[in-house]
Amino acid sequence: MIKWADEQIARGIRLSYGVNRVLSQASTPHQELTLIENDQFGRVLLLDGVTQVATADEFIYHEMLAHVPLFAHGEARDVLIIGGGDCGLAEEVLRHEGVRRVFQVELDAAVVDAARRHLGAINAPVFSDQRFHLKIDDGVRFVDGLDERFDVVLVDSTDPIGPGARLFSAEFYRAIQRCLRPRGVLAVQAGMPFLQRTGFATTVANLSSVFQRSGCYLLASPSYVGGHLSLGWGSDSLRIDSVALDVLEGRIARSGLNLRYYSAAIHRAAFVLPPYIAQLLPSRSVDQSTPQAPATASA
Amino acid sequence: MIKWADEQIARGIRLSYGVNRVLSQASTPHQELTLIENDQFGRVLLLDGVTQVATADEFIYHEMLAHVPLFAHGEARDVLIIGGGDCGLAEEVLRHEGVRRVFQVELDAAVVDAARRHLGAINAPVFSDQRFHLKIDDGVRFVDGLDERFDVVLVDSTDPIGPGARLFSAEFYRAIQRCLRPRGVLAVQAGMPFLQRTGFATTVANLSSVFQRSGCYLLASPSYVGGHLSLGWGSDSLRIDSVALDVLEGRIARSGLNLRYYSAAIHRAAFVLPPYIAQLLPSRSVDQSTPQAPATASA
Repeated sequence: MIKWADEQIARGIRLSYGVNRVLSQASTPHQELTLIENDQFGRVLLLDGVTQVATADEFIYHEMLAHVPLFAHGEARDVLIIGGGDCGLAEEVLRHEGVRRVFQVELDAAVVDAARRHLGAINAPVFSDQRFHLKIDDGVRFVDGLDERFDVVLVDSTDPIGPGARLFSAEFYRAIQRCLRPRGVLAVQAGMPFLQRTGFATTVANLSSVFQRSGCYLLASPSYVGGHLSLGWGSDSLRIDSVALDVLEGRIARSGLNLRYYSAAIHRAAFVLPPYIAQLLPSRSVDQSTPQAPATASA
Repeated sequence: MIKWADEQIARGIRLSYGVNRVLSQASTPHQELTLIENDQFGRVLLLDGVTQVATADEFIYHEMLAHVPLFAHGEARDVLIIGGGDCGLAEEVLRHEGVRRVFQVELDAAVVDAARRHLGAINAPVFSDQRFHLKIDDGVRFVDGLDERFDVVLVDSTDPIGPGARLFSAEFYRAIQRCLRPRGVLAVQAGMPFLQRTGFATTVANLSSVFQRSGCYLLASPSYVGGHLSLGWGSDSLRIDSVALDVLEGRIARSGLNLRYYSAAIHRAAFVLPPYIAQLLPSRSVDQSTPQAPATASA
């Protein structure tokens, strides 16, 4: 008899995973942690009943959150990750040989412990990498007291509900802005434009109120139900939405990375927003980040 | 107490809709029909427990299935729809003033009846449009005996399981090929590349074995769970994947249509495939339909 693990996607929408095996189930000091095995998605980590990562399709979200800002920047050496307890994002960032340090601040040690024990398929290289530094702390508090500079900051968080909401605020984005080097860029999980319309619109508006350049880009990941998932970005100088295709292709080729979702063409295409999503953006952000036309390869 | 309507998305994955109201529930001669009201997706039609259309997001699928081939063609006058019983696709096609006739062949009269009664929000204009002609018949048999020619043929079908599988066969695509005018193009629902890998790969391979030009393009629609949904296409002369951006923009502007998902930029971006999807295509089809780089606006 199969057991099902339910996720409340939105009011009136529920996703259920058939559970082949429960790998971990625990009440941490911060949340309910569930780690299961499922036929379609492999190992699935849920926090407070919300899917965080699935080993079968995590490459989609992690490649897009890591490689879009990193290949747009081209010379990132120091990367800060807020959240990302499953460490699949850090793994993707550390594949860039030019990165000399990944500093990760995760609230919940139990998430990292469970991920280290059960999600080696997506994070094993991280824990033996000298460039990786993990601190268990509150991300907002940590960034407030931070006196270092980074080239890329990534916020890999849960949804903007409860305490997590502070990770989507303009105040937090201003604190991150102070930690960015010139040409530095921030990228964040920004929710599902269809099912989380307000959260998405608020997040992108907050980015727009802080940074000179901002906007969002899209991906589609099977275990995140709701159509497109959006990633928001902000920078005071770098336009990650309009890096020339041949520049991206050169950087990707030199990296030697074998990628499954990300490519130079996907990088550019991800910034093209369907009108129904573009309409949710602040007008300033629409002008800046929704290319009306793909640029030429040599632009 | 809320009642839930369940959809088995794949082995070990189930989606449940909270049911505010049951509008129709019937055993037709062909399938189990369920039409409900849901908080997120509005009115949802399920056949044999599989979501066919939801009024809140049907614009995504129907705009992409209709407008990509129609705007790529530019002068379509006669359009054939196989399936599409909810009539939301016909409604989208009939928005093109240059179209003089939409011929639709649907197997199940009960689906059209229920859609006419309950889904007026997405199909009302169809039933008073003199250009619309509906025939209740088996699509495969109908096309076999067909002695007319069309500019665009659209297959809006259920998934390739059971009797529906014939709608994804090379034999059926060859029969459609005989009904296409020069510059004619076929577009079809081709499944979810992630969750229905084999069905997707087989469909695109079948198109590739029949047509000189073929491939697929992608969309993300919240009520179709599984990441990207693919639409396949085939033509012996028209390359709908590489129509110049300014040509598309001109045609869209002249149409006067107010669109919510489709745009010229989305048209081009939809053909950019993540590597993990491109790898499932027959190599000939990959070469033809996966642009390595978006062309210039004036190409």
